[in-house]
Amino acid sequence: MAGTLDIVSTRTAFLILREAFYGGTRFEEFVERAGVSEPVASARLRELTDEGLLVREPYREPGQRTRYEYRLTEKGADLLPVLVALMEWGDRWALEGGARVKLRHAGCGAPVELSLQCAEGHPVGQDDLELALKRPA
Amino acid sequence: MAGTLDIVSTRTAFLILREAFYGGTRFEEFVERAGVSEPVASARLRELTDEGLLVREPYREPGQRTRYEYRLTEKGADLLPVLVALMEWGDRWALEGGARVKLRHAGCGAPVELSLQCAEGHPVGQDDLELALKRPA
Repeated sequence: MAGTLDIVSTRTAFLILREAFYGGTRFEEFVERAGVSEPVASARLRELTDEGLLVREPYREPGQRTRYEYRLTEKGADLLPVLVALMEWGDRWALEGGARVKLRHAGCGAPVELSLQCAEGHPVGQDDLELALKRPA
Repeated sequence: MAGTLDIVSTRTAFLILREAFYGGTRFEEFVERAGVSEPVASARLRELTDEGLLVREPYREPGQRTRYEYRLTEKGADLLPVLVALMEWGDRWALEGGARVKLRHAGCGAPVELSLQCAEGHPVGQDDLELALKRPA
């Protein structure tokens, strides 16, 4: 987990990842929607690409020079539960005022939720946890 | 979410929270198990207490001076899904070698898992997300 935190613990890195989940792909979109400066967006996009969370791909519109867009890799897309967990917690405890963005299931429109359960299907709370050491294969 | 990140984005803060979930309460336990120095543990415990994620309570063993233990508040305990999501991601993508700690359901011993679904019970993946603006009440 320490490794994960090294990668995503910059607040601006996470805001940029969030925009990628929301469908943003272009540099200008990250700058505008994440509300960060161009140099900051540029530095974070480079780090996220270096870490394999985003991939940078060239695209070209007619009559324009080649530009780049950024897409989530499988490794990056796998951070979705972390992002949703942070948003749920922020919604409940940390945010004040202002319009909030809520995630909904595109299929039926119902709100998206995270749940914690065991592989046997039992719901798991803080007092139901047990630790096991798992040795590497 | 930006607020959440401000609080938990320090790597050592999260390692200390993890130890609190594992049942650690005493200063020495945080230092030893999170593998941080005493000044770092002290600074992080103070910040986490100031943010209302931990509460500091006096205790006293016979013949000893009063000391303090740290317990998760409801706000802190609510970070469990974030922690589990980070551990799952780290397990899959970021960790190399070394013994790992796995969370299990105390009731039946099965591994603890996070899942993302909508309120109607449909499983939700990255491509099934839709955004909705939620205005504050």
